Amino acid sequence: MTICALATAPGGALGIIRISGPQALEILSRVFTKDLSKAEPNTIHYGHIKDGAEIIDEVMVSIFRAPRSYTGEDSAEISCHGSRYILNKVLELLVQNGCRMAGPGEFTQRAYLNGKMDLSQAEAVADLIASSNKATHDIALNQLRGHFSSELSRLREQLLKLTSLLELELDFSDHEDLEFADRSELLTLANEIDNRVTHLAKSFEAGQALKNGIPVAIIGKTNVGKSTLLNRLLKDDRAIVSDIHGTTRDTIEDTIDIHGVTFRFIDTAGIRQTSDEIEQIGINRTYAAIEKARIVLWLIDAEPSTEDINALIQRTENKKLIILKNKSDKTDNNRYNLLNLPFIAISAKFGTGIEALEQAIYEAADIPTLQDRDVIVTNARHYEALTLAHSHLQRVIDGLQQQVSGDLLSEDLRLTLDTLSEITGGQITPNEVLGNIFKHFCVGK
Amino acid sequence: MTICALATAPGGALGIIRISGPQALEILSRVFTKDLSKAEPNTIHYGHIKDGAEIIDEVMVSIFRAPRSYTGEDSAEISCHGSRYILNKVLELLVQNGCRMAGPGEFTQRAYLNGKMDLSQAEAVADLIASSNKATHDIALNQLRGHFSSELSRLREQLLKLTSLLELELDFSDHEDLEFADRSELLTLANEIDNRVTHLAKSFEAGQALKNGIPVAIIGKTNVGKSTLLNRLLKDDRAIVSDIHGTTRDTIEDTIDIHGVTFRFIDTAGIRQTSDEIEQIGINRTYAAIEKARIVLWLIDAEPSTEDINALIQRTENKKLIILKNKSDKTDNNRYNLLNLPFIAISAKFGTGIEALEQAIYEAADIPTLQDRDVIVTNARHYEALTLAHSHLQRVIDGLQQQVSGDLLSEDLRLTLDTLSEITGGQITPNEVLGNIFKHFCVGK
Repeated sequence: MTICALATAPGGALGIIRISGPQALEILSRVFTKDLSKAEPNTIHYGHIKDGAEIIDEVMVSIFRAPRSYTGEDSAEISCHGSRYILNKVLELLVQNGCRMAGPGEFTQRAYLNGKMDLSQAEAVADLIASSNKATHDIALNQLRGHFSSELSRLREQLLKLTSLLELELDFSDHEDLEFADRSELLTLANEIDNRVTHLAKSFEAGQALKNGIPVAIIGKTNVGKSTLLNRLLKDDRAIVSDIHGTTRDTIEDTIDIHGVTFRFIDTAGIRQTSDEIEQIGINRTYAAIEKARIVLWLIDAEPSTEDINALIQRTENKKLIILKNKSDKTDNNRYNLLNLPFIAISAKFGTGIEALEQAIYEAADIPTLQDRDVIVTNARHYEALTLAHSHLQRVIDGLQQQVSGDLLSEDLRLTLDTLSEITGGQITPNEVLGNIFKHFCVGK
Repeated sequence: MTICALATAPGGALGIIRISGPQALEILSRVFTKDLSKAEPNTIHYGHIKDGAEIIDEVMVSIFRAPRSYTGEDSAEISCHGSRYILNKVLELLVQNGCRMAGPGEFTQRAYLNGKMDLSQAEAVADLIASSNKATHDIALNQLRGHFSSELSRLREQLLKLTSLLELELDFSDHEDLEFADRSELLTLANEIDNRVTHLAKSFEAGQALKNGIPVAIIGKTNVGKSTLLNRLLKDDRAIVSDIHGTTRDTIEDTIDIHGVTFRFIDTAGIRQTSDEIEQIGINRTYAAIEKARIVLWLIDAEPSTEDINALIQRTENKKLIILKNKSDKTDNNRYNLLNLPFIAISAKFGTGIEALEQAIYEAADIPTLQDRDVIVTNARHYEALTLAHSHLQRVIDGLQQQVSGDLLSEDLRLTLDTLSEITGGQITPNEVLGNIFKHFCVGK
């Protein structure tokens, strides 16, 4: 079935309508001034989209031919004037002439089903489109370019090697003395694979933080300058984006980008309001913010009591705590003792020390520097598969150590292989799984 | 100078970045995997946008060559994944490599300056993109396709004929007896031109109504069913638009489309609230709504007094009044006398008679049926020029009638010609005028 969809957001100067499927060029020719059914691939054609004799728009049509197209099918892209009326009318015409409106991600799903990319690459397409900073962009692009797939393919090779070594062991199992010699090599290999699987699974936490923005809490007494600091940090976030004329920036409230990583300030509602609220509510709110944060900015303008310092250190045990001495213009911050904890002197009001603070926030995030071929897992489905593969592998490792016979271990090895294969789609992917994956895509991709 | 801009709305699966200018293909080649400076026109190229060694995106690039491009210059369109990060990064790269960010409408302005279209056609591009219903779309497309331009060109030819006839008259002015015989022909021609100019100027009112939506007021007593009727009409507006999966519709509140024409319900705030307001306020509000409307729907559920009927007829003298007998399911509407005025029996609650009502609203709007080559003026600049041309022509006509000598009339004729020429841009258009026209465009077109 030939499908069509609007591939751009509505409301621009141009709108691109995408068609893909065996009948793409025939259907297009029915509504276009020229016959494009024999058009050369990768060519552009000027003409009119027509509803019978009535002209709907002057357009440019790009022609792609199977298998050298995004979907692997015959396809076309119609570049229309971006009016709501035109875009809907053209889609309507295509549907009347035999197209079906595409579901979310259906073009990419076809690319997957036609072997143009594996499933993890297909998922990277959606991530790439959704990425709003350099970190998530680089991760998605690496994944789209197949770096995760190659990593998984190396792991599968090692698992197959392990399997064949186990089979070899079985072949020699009559010679009981041989069994022990082989197992240390098997164990090393199994541990090596498991380490890599665990490493990938562990990257999920960083991946999630990068995807959603790393949560930062600003805490401190009333009137210490929390709101001024928040506004200072938000204002300081001069993304090139908003400076280039003609590009709009989706403002995600209360986030900043530092070196391409997004930080998200949490529970800022309390900070933003001029608060003459009862102090008790403030403290509870503070604890809640700390709980959700990965990085805690503690703003002070006077020497805190030893009790307060100790209480806070306890509360932020698994977090990164950054102590900020505010109002550096007014007080001699260096006179504070702070139990000799490190601190940064800032003036939220005048912007002093903000650069140092941003650097400290970035370092506290402890983001692994992303090299060209590094893989960070950002997808929950992949994370689940890796975690499951790890548990299967653990049984293999335990079995190897406890001298369980090889034929009993091969089942767990097979499960590990299958589980890892699911990430890239393996041999067959049930429709149900595909449906779940692609339903989160935007339409037109 | 080579310019670049995002030509699609941000937020879609795809984003198109447009480049145009003498250096377009050289600059593009600096950030693309392949050298495109010698690429064939109207071809599509797959590759990567790169920042040095770093890959920003996998893209498709379309190549257009001067003079066979939209702007008349060498140009290219980069089809990127639609993420904010990618689109900004690609624009940033292009700017770093020698492009300038385009201003609003700058591509179309170049198309005009390079003789690809005249000024009224350039303006039609913006109208076409902004049009949200069939009527405004058809007007804009007709204008883009040059129908208004041809009409103006015919008028200019007639004016030139008039000018040469006047010159002929001057040549023969020694023979005093000849002067009178010629003038009736001159007068006929001048009136013919003026009629057409006036006709075009008059179409502006309809054009404006079509562009902004024709204002409709719903009036009637409290609890007569105004809110139910409004909701019924809004709900009945099943634009195909909203039914096609994956296309969003910009909901302009309280408008409906009937046969491709938009009607806008005014002062609906009062209708929407459950009103137990003082009746006097209700009446004042009603009068205000009538004042702003072109079509008035008077909803009744009981026989109004003769005084009320007469008062309303007086108030709606220059409007179209449609009387609606509501609650057709409950009362025997036909028993009302209504001074023998026509009415439509409806039930807002059950939807009876709504189709007939919509037809009546459409007919009341009295929209000239738009034929393929019909011209309706929707642009204030054009309207002003036509009005001015009319006043110059009136002086010509008066002069012809009052036996003013030909050399005095030729100045007014020249002014008429110049004024009409301004619509299509004439010989030279001052930068200031161009700036005013294109600043209302979207960026990227």
